[in-house]
Amino acid sequence: MKIKLNSKSPIGVFDSGLGGLTVIKALQKILPNESFIYLGDTANVPYGNKSNTTVIKYSKKILDFFISKNTKAVVIACNTASSVAYDELKEKYDVPLFDVVRPSVDFANHISKTRKICIIGTNSTINSKAYLKTFKKIKSNCSITEIACPLLVPVIEEGWANTHIANLICKTYLHSLNKTDIDTLILGCTHYSIMSHSIKNVINKNIKMVFSGETVGIKLMEYLKKNSLINKKNKGHVNFFVTDYPQKFNELAEQFLDQKLNSIKCIKLP
Amino acid sequence: MKIKLNSKSPIGVFDSGLGGLTVIKALQKILPNESFIYLGDTANVPYGNKSNTTVIKYSKKILDFFISKNTKAVVIACNTASSVAYDELKEKYDVPLFDVVRPSVDFANHISKTRKICIIGTNSTINSKAYLKTFKKIKSNCSITEIACPLLVPVIEEGWANTHIANLICKTYLHSLNKTDIDTLILGCTHYSIMSHSIKNVINKNIKMVFSGETVGIKLMEYLKKNSLINKKNKGHVNFFVTDYPQKFNELAEQFLDQKLNSIKCIKLP
Repeated sequence: MKIKLNSKSPIGVFDSGLGGLTVIKALQKILPNESFIYLGDTANVPYGNKSNTTVIKYSKKILDFFISKNTKAVVIACNTASSVAYDELKEKYDVPLFDVVRPSVDFANHISKTRKICIIGTNSTINSKAYLKTFKKIKSNCSITEIACPLLVPVIEEGWANTHIANLICKTYLHSLNKTDIDTLILGCTHYSIMSHSIKNVINKNIKMVFSGETVGIKLMEYLKKNSLINKKNKGHVNFFVTDYPQKFNELAEQFLDQKLNSIKCIKLP
Repeated sequence: MKIKLNSKSPIGVFDSGLGGLTVIKALQKILPNESFIYLGDTANVPYGNKSNTTVIKYSKKILDFFISKNTKAVVIACNTASSVAYDELKEKYDVPLFDVVRPSVDFANHISKTRKICIIGTNSTINSKAYLKTFKKIKSNCSITEIACPLLVPVIEEGWANTHIANLICKTYLHSLNKTDIDTLILGCTHYSIMSHSIKNVINKNIKMVFSGETVGIKLMEYLKKNSLINKKNKGHVNFFVTDYPQKFNELAEQFLDQKLNSIKCIKLP
């Protein structure tokens, strides 16, 4: 189905849960006039421990929902869905589609001077080798290190980001980086930007952090400009949807977005 | 179906994942001649975020598996399944059935002198109010405090139990207990016994810890003795089954059991 794109249409952004809200925050900064529809598939969170087939099935339902809302672009603000479902969604849907892996890989590959890059992520992201494969795909000459940091998401979701305990956990995971000449650190999980102070505290000052929200935001902005789809008139806003209403959602969402959510709709996808 | 119980038959023990291995460890100590079949339903871990209907469905499949193995008793070594599925399983199955909530409640109610008891558990266990309801059911006159400690399971599964970070996390959750006259602490999650050193380090010396594995072990031993089902001749062993083979399973399982696992079979339940 050919979609007619309109500069006034909203942009769809989805994640399995809350993490993608950090992407919304970055996108709002880069594209202040755009309106967004955020969908957190909280009934099926986390995607990381589900099969590829299942993640693709969920992602398709979300794309159908966004298409019904006439979105002019869709951002997959979830590392698992980005690495597992992007290719199939790209083939099936006509809507301009953006993932969070490729933009960070391109950006890191562009800025690294020592040609040594580290990626941190959840167990499932690191085990999927999604970042490694993408560096290979772009024929990067960088040497890549990966570190799984499975405690960061639970610590963030407990509301303990950037506390003394968070600093100690980040130090345990990342202190070895300081003995290398890695100069670029990809935060390969949309949650991790919440923890950026703790991470910054424990890594060498010369190591630059790469955030998914910012890198996909730049790609999206470039695309909208090139295709005259930038919304110049509106004052942007976000409509929030979830598929289940978890405890503490509001409280955590505020922490992720640095703003109060006006309203969240709970919907069932078919 | 009436089951013929035999003292030489094994005892079935199940959990959604690894936590129930701490129950196995306690049962082996209390009942050294018994043989056990352990099933970790790792394909469906965790049960805590699933609906009651789903948890009951999974538990029934596991009970059917145990019945096919001719078990003489079954221990539900999972807090969620204990609180959600016990009553229905008890009604449907003839095999003697033991949960991990009631034995700890009975034991704590028996030993508390100040009549003030605290329960710690995962978010889902605390939100379910399973322990509170059980204290009401036995008409206990104790006053009950509950503290959700959602980071303990991820810290244990990361292999960081009883480290400096684990001590700090336990202190953050539990330091307020020391200002009360609570004298009994129920570890309402089968994982938590792994963290007992950290917990002990931060609570007052007069607070006694109650472990699911030990309390259900005593109830099981009493039952087997009363019904002449104690295995007096065999040297006990455990057969391990999982429904999916997660990374790090062996490594974690050794940490939970303090012994090497001879072999683990991965099975699909119908």
